[in-house]
Amino acid sequence: MKATGIIVEYNPFHNGHLLHLREAKKQTHADVIIAVMSGSFLQRGEPALLPKWERAQMAIDAGVDLVVELPFHFATQQAAIFANGAIEILGALNVQSIFFGSENGDAHAFSSAAKLMIEQSIPFKAAMRRFLDDKTHSYATAWNAAIHELAPDLTLDLAQPNNILGFHYALAIAEQGKKIEIATMARQNAAYHDANPTHHSIASATAIRTMLLANDWKKAHQYVPHTTFSILQKFRETHSFVSWNDFWPLLKYQLITAPTAQLPSIRGVSEGIENRLQQAALHAINFDEFLAATRTKRYSNSRIKRTALQILAQQTEATAPTQNYIRLLGMSVTGQQYLRQIKKDIALPIISTASKANPALIENDIRATKLYSFAATLENQILRDFHSFPYRKNP
Amino acid sequence: MKATGIIVEYNPFHNGHLLHLREAKKQTHADVIIAVMSGSFLQRGEPALLPKWERAQMAIDAGVDLVVELPFHFATQQAAIFANGAIEILGALNVQSIFFGSENGDAHAFSSAAKLMIEQSIPFKAAMRRFLDDKTHSYATAWNAAIHELAPDLTLDLAQPNNILGFHYALAIAEQGKKIEIATMARQNAAYHDANPTHHSIASATAIRTMLLANDWKKAHQYVPHTTFSILQKFRETHSFVSWNDFWPLLKYQLITAPTAQLPSIRGVSEGIENRLQQAALHAINFDEFLAATRTKRYSNSRIKRTALQILAQQTEATAPTQNYIRLLGMSVTGQQYLRQIKKDIALPIISTASKANPALIENDIRATKLYSFAATLENQILRDFHSFPYRKNP
Repeated sequence: MKATGIIVEYNPFHNGHLLHLREAKKQTHADVIIAVMSGSFLQRGEPALLPKWERAQMAIDAGVDLVVELPFHFATQQAAIFANGAIEILGALNVQSIFFGSENGDAHAFSSAAKLMIEQSIPFKAAMRRFLDDKTHSYATAWNAAIHELAPDLTLDLAQPNNILGFHYALAIAEQGKKIEIATMARQNAAYHDANPTHHSIASATAIRTMLLANDWKKAHQYVPHTTFSILQKFRETHSFVSWNDFWPLLKYQLITAPTAQLPSIRGVSEGIENRLQQAALHAINFDEFLAATRTKRYSNSRIKRTALQILAQQTEATAPTQNYIRLLGMSVTGQQYLRQIKKDIALPIISTASKANPALIENDIRATKLYSFAATLENQILRDFHSFPYRKNP
Repeated sequence: MKATGIIVEYNPFHNGHLLHLREAKKQTHADVIIAVMSGSFLQRGEPALLPKWERAQMAIDAGVDLVVELPFHFATQQAAIFANGAIEILGALNVQSIFFGSENGDAHAFSSAAKLMIEQSIPFKAAMRRFLDDKTHSYATAWNAAIHELAPDLTLDLAQPNNILGFHYALAIAEQGKKIEIATMARQNAAYHDANPTHHSIASATAIRTMLLANDWKKAHQYVPHTTFSILQKFRETHSFVSWNDFWPLLKYQLITAPTAQLPSIRGVSEGIENRLQQAALHAINFDEFLAATRTKRYSNSRIKRTALQILAQQTEATAPTQNYIRLLGMSVTGQQYLRQIKKDIALPIISTASKANPALIENDIRATKLYSFAATLENQILRDFHSFPYRKNP
């Protein structure tokens, strides 16, 4: 069976994702679609709207064959680390290609940019340092400026969020020496941050979350599959959707009570950012105020949120899992067949239930999802992640 | 001027304290009474009912001349550390005697027990180890058994809470080589933990807190001076009294999210107690349930609460202040005169306002009181401790 990998957050799964899923199957002639999905917390440093278990079910119900979790360690980090973790998992699951949406839409552009980066890594790093040292660049803009200095005729705009991710997928494939083909489609209709959808059935996840948080179910319904809609409704009957606001008192406590000298041991805390965050926490009365007080040209909203999340989840170098692993969250019948077929060749440990896994592998993710259960209505789910089995869809 | 030291928590200041204060003056012929008072958190591992500033004012209004804060580092620890910190401060403030309430009531018994302990420290430690190793003793009962093995005719019952403290005051005086006389009075009427007062004007602080938390102001009034009563009433108009319940969600978060391997760096966390606490936090829905689930013969309630507090406040060896210091919380006119008179001979740094103090000294206490301001109605006091001046009572 021929497998294609996709890298997703499904926060929540919507019609744009369905289109992407169908296009992935079509363009790559896949028998099996494998989604590596972030768990409780996401790449932009935010908690997911609802638990990974509901989101995995949405994916399987909509046609994904296998959903595996991208560990917190990778899922909540900048593109390079995020991509490295996801590609390692997809490589171990023996996908022949990966498929992703991008602003660019030309697979070749990504491969050549990755090749260039590997061949020119020393001048790239020097240029990067130079742009960062002039203090007017964020990490992302310095990065884009540096690569375009090396390759003035590169057609890939690396200031675009999906192009950045796609580039890092290509780079991770090259660096890990994996034989994985790249396929991409140009994103249409719903720009990543677009809060006002204009297309009749496709809206960005951001826009859909806004509708759901405003309880505008009628509007949200036209942008998500029925399967997603019923999972959302069922969840919402007994729970609230999750947001940073749920964790603000805990973040504030942690920023104020953690000894200042201890904060630099947290991932992403450097250059004195801990002082800025601690000062802002003293005065802010909610997470939005905190963000407004900490954001600068140098520290983007995403960087601040990611750093705040690492502090909240107490992530140090010592908390990293001892190696990457494959945690199953959901499987179709085809997915189960595929897994049986390749099982003995998989180079990474496979985890079906956390309670039976090697704690050194899984502990950090279990801890992160226990933290997630501090959200308003999830307190009875504190052990759910430890005991759950993957969602299985049988015919 | 002749000064006498007392070591207090005043949680809150009541008629028993007033009696003690008058007796201290009388028995020691003191011109000045100096109280070393715990700040936001207390020796039994609990938050104070109301802030140190209100409690310092109660003391000064009732006749204490100088209130200085016992730093968190000492105030929230077992008797030996607690006493060492307090005696160091009183010694630096040049008191001629200390005065304390005890179950025993005979000053000589304390001095001789301290002398014995210094002379017999090696056999004492061996006996102590033996009693602890048999696993049926708590630290406190092992301690009492060991000392009575060495001195079978000792009249001092070291299982009584105030005798234990008094003994440690005497021991600290001897160990620090201070020339401080000991005076004590037998405690009457209100046993330390007695929740049902029988005397017409004296009740234990525990009993009074119970009345106040139940809003039984009429009953509480007969057990506290008018000055205390009006400070309590004024505080209660805009705030709630503080209890462990205010900090339970934060403790639960900290126990669940802190990496297990990191917890043993916290003061008092040893012998695998961290696993017991983390397990209990997963299931408990409030602090009382947590206590009930963690208490054993070996781990008393006080030990658990103290350990929980050190975890909540993230106290490691590295957070200890670089040295002890004298932080002024309140002064009468006499207190101010006394301070001017001895000022140039005081061996410890004096801190009048935290914002002007050496941060390495004061940071840990400021941090602890910021944490205290996470209680229900104190969020606007997060910077109070940093900017406040000592309460001064002028004629």
